[in-house]
Amino acid sequence: MKMNAAVLEKLNEPLAVVADIQIPELARGQVLVRVAYSGVCHSQLMEARGARGEDRFLPHLLGHEGTGVVEAVGEGVTKVKPGDWVVLGWIKGLGLDGGGAQYLHAGRKINAGGVTTFNEHAVVAENRLVHLPEGIPLDVGVLFGCALPTGAGIVTNTIKPVPGSSLAVFGLGGIGLSALMATQLFDCRQVIAIDINPDKLALAKDFGATVTIDARNENVAARLRELTGAGLDYAVEATGLSSTIELAFESVRRGGGLCVFASHPAHGSRISIDPFELICGKRLQGSWGGECKPDEDIPKFAELYRQGRLPLERLITKRYRLADINEALDDLEAQRVGRPLLEISPELNQRYLADRQK
Amino acid sequence: MKMNAAVLEKLNEPLAVVADIQIPELARGQVLVRVAYSGVCHSQLMEARGARGEDRFLPHLLGHEGTGVVEAVGEGVTKVKPGDWVVLGWIKGLGLDGGGAQYLHAGRKINAGGVTTFNEHAVVAENRLVHLPEGIPLDVGVLFGCALPTGAGIVTNTIKPVPGSSLAVFGLGGIGLSALMATQLFDCRQVIAIDINPDKLALAKDFGATVTIDARNENVAARLRELTGAGLDYAVEATGLSSTIELAFESVRRGGGLCVFASHPAHGSRISIDPFELICGKRLQGSWGGECKPDEDIPKFAELYRQGRLPLERLITKRYRLADINEALDDLEAQRVGRPLLEISPELNQRYLADRQK
Repeated sequence: MKMNAAVLEKLNEPLAVVADIQIPELARGQVLVRVAYSGVCHSQLMEARGARGEDRFLPHLLGHEGTGVVEAVGEGVTKVKPGDWVVLGWIKGLGLDGGGAQYLHAGRKINAGGVTTFNEHAVVAENRLVHLPEGIPLDVGVLFGCALPTGAGIVTNTIKPVPGSSLAVFGLGGIGLSALMATQLFDCRQVIAIDINPDKLALAKDFGATVTIDARNENVAARLRELTGAGLDYAVEATGLSSTIELAFESVRRGGGLCVFASHPAHGSRISIDPFELICGKRLQGSWGGECKPDEDIPKFAELYRQGRLPLERLITKRYRLADINEALDDLEAQRVGRPLLEISPELNQRYLADRQK
Repeated sequence: MKMNAAVLEKLNEPLAVVADIQIPELARGQVLVRVAYSGVCHSQLMEARGARGEDRFLPHLLGHEGTGVVEAVGEGVTKVKPGDWVVLGWIKGLGLDGGGAQYLHAGRKINAGGVTTFNEHAVVAENRLVHLPEGIPLDVGVLFGCALPTGAGIVTNTIKPVPGSSLAVFGLGGIGLSALMATQLFDCRQVIAIDINPDKLALAKDFGATVTIDARNENVAARLRELTGAGLDYAVEATGLSSTIELAFESVRRGGGLCVFASHPAHGSRISIDPFELICGKRLQGSWGGECKPDEDIPKFAELYRQGRLPLERLITKRYRLADINEALDDLEAQRVGRPLLEISPELNQRYLADRQK
């Protein structure tokens, strides 16, 4: 069986959209999924741009949040069966860690990790998928693979804001906006949204931000001091920039203020912090997928979505075909789009809707 | 009433030992203590050397761990009464926060914080003293004011090592050795002591270190990798050097390894860390006095001392008179001494022993 896929051939060059890639046989713990939709996340952009350092897996497939339908299962797989609708994501959950796959194209190997989604079919490790919960549109479902668990998980699993607290989200991409949505499940006194894009700031207000700060026009540190006095109770940093992580850390209060950052800056870049602030009780943590356990957390987030409390569809502001993947990456890089959506096999949607009406 | 005291007149100059300082009247929440012994801690050395930045309180008194006897109490004080033997320390506990005091000398004011101990008498806030527990020698008792709660508290309150874990202590001053002692209350598999002083490394072995590393002669990072594989479960950093905090952080394992540092480097110095390591689950915390609550923790540590499990007297390797305070500071700076002990009013010891035999 053959398929089309976007291939990272060389760092810092456009992805190649390649036809007739040979899909390998399934090994133990692997699942073959026909991909319906994929998100495009900042981390994948960084990888394609070479910002994750040397890449010894080239050429390889990319993408780590998607939805699709199971076509076949390898030995030992018990979590899903052919015909099941699934969310694909990078955060490991229950099931066999079926490892990566090697595809073939014109006699050469194309590598892939335990999950990839910029491709029509994906050989996925059993532990990188979960059932797509009832009531979730097939396109919106992609967000359950990365942006939502990471952003909302930071708020619901890591921070758990206490009533009356102040929280700021730095950077309103898929993760930042998901974090913002999740703050609505808590009784924060102040929810501050910070970005450089006026459209996103407007969106943030609709998502429940009590204040927005346009970092192009305002001194963020000074404005936060004015708003919070001694500092924020919590900061969620979702820009992936060292300087913003430092700013977010500086903005939390001594004596327990917590700064959690969602993604790491370019390979080799470091953050510089004043150790006295740690002595004084400021806290700094990196987040690995919002501490989510996909098999437990995705159904919880789905229930919130069904209740209308997570307006996820509003994160998806532009749609692309697989052939236009490089446009999607460019738009993401230039901050012209929220979370780009790749319509890999949108024709699956009709089958999905029919299945769900049964 | 008048007394002798060491006064910090100017940053980075020797302390002046000044006679005939006028002791102020007690304000609400203050206690007058005749100081018997004082420790000299690295943080006070840093302050005297100007490494804590601008000092707007000059001239002022210093010292923040000591023992003594209560001579008078101000309005509102209920915790102690005249004749009580007490530990003085900087970590706030129960009682009124009676603030600092202003002493007078030859018509000029000499400032003091809520506790000072490089002086024969001290006006101390009620919340900076606790009763000296039974069975603690008056000299050893000074360590209950700072070094012991900070070092042992990091282990018993913050880290709480799980059985079978690995822990390294970087820097074997009063705090580091106290941390090392406290590891003996847990079932660690590896306790690694790191310093540049062979005498301290020998002492560490007696305190239960399973391995010692002489940082003058060995590559600490390489040796730790060899000893621990994926990294330490816990690092206690007690040198107060940025470079060592960075090394200690790098030495803990991904996925939960915890580095706690006890003191902060010189004012203005920063630490540089790789944010990806935080994303991967390494943890970095500064410690404020080992998270101790003096009124709860000091009695606990005293019980351990009485059981012979905290050989505190071995930290005190050299004694000085108040007049020799600058020699004590120089010796501490040059690492010629463990925890210097100032014999401020050693003649109180006889009265103490008589009192305790009643």
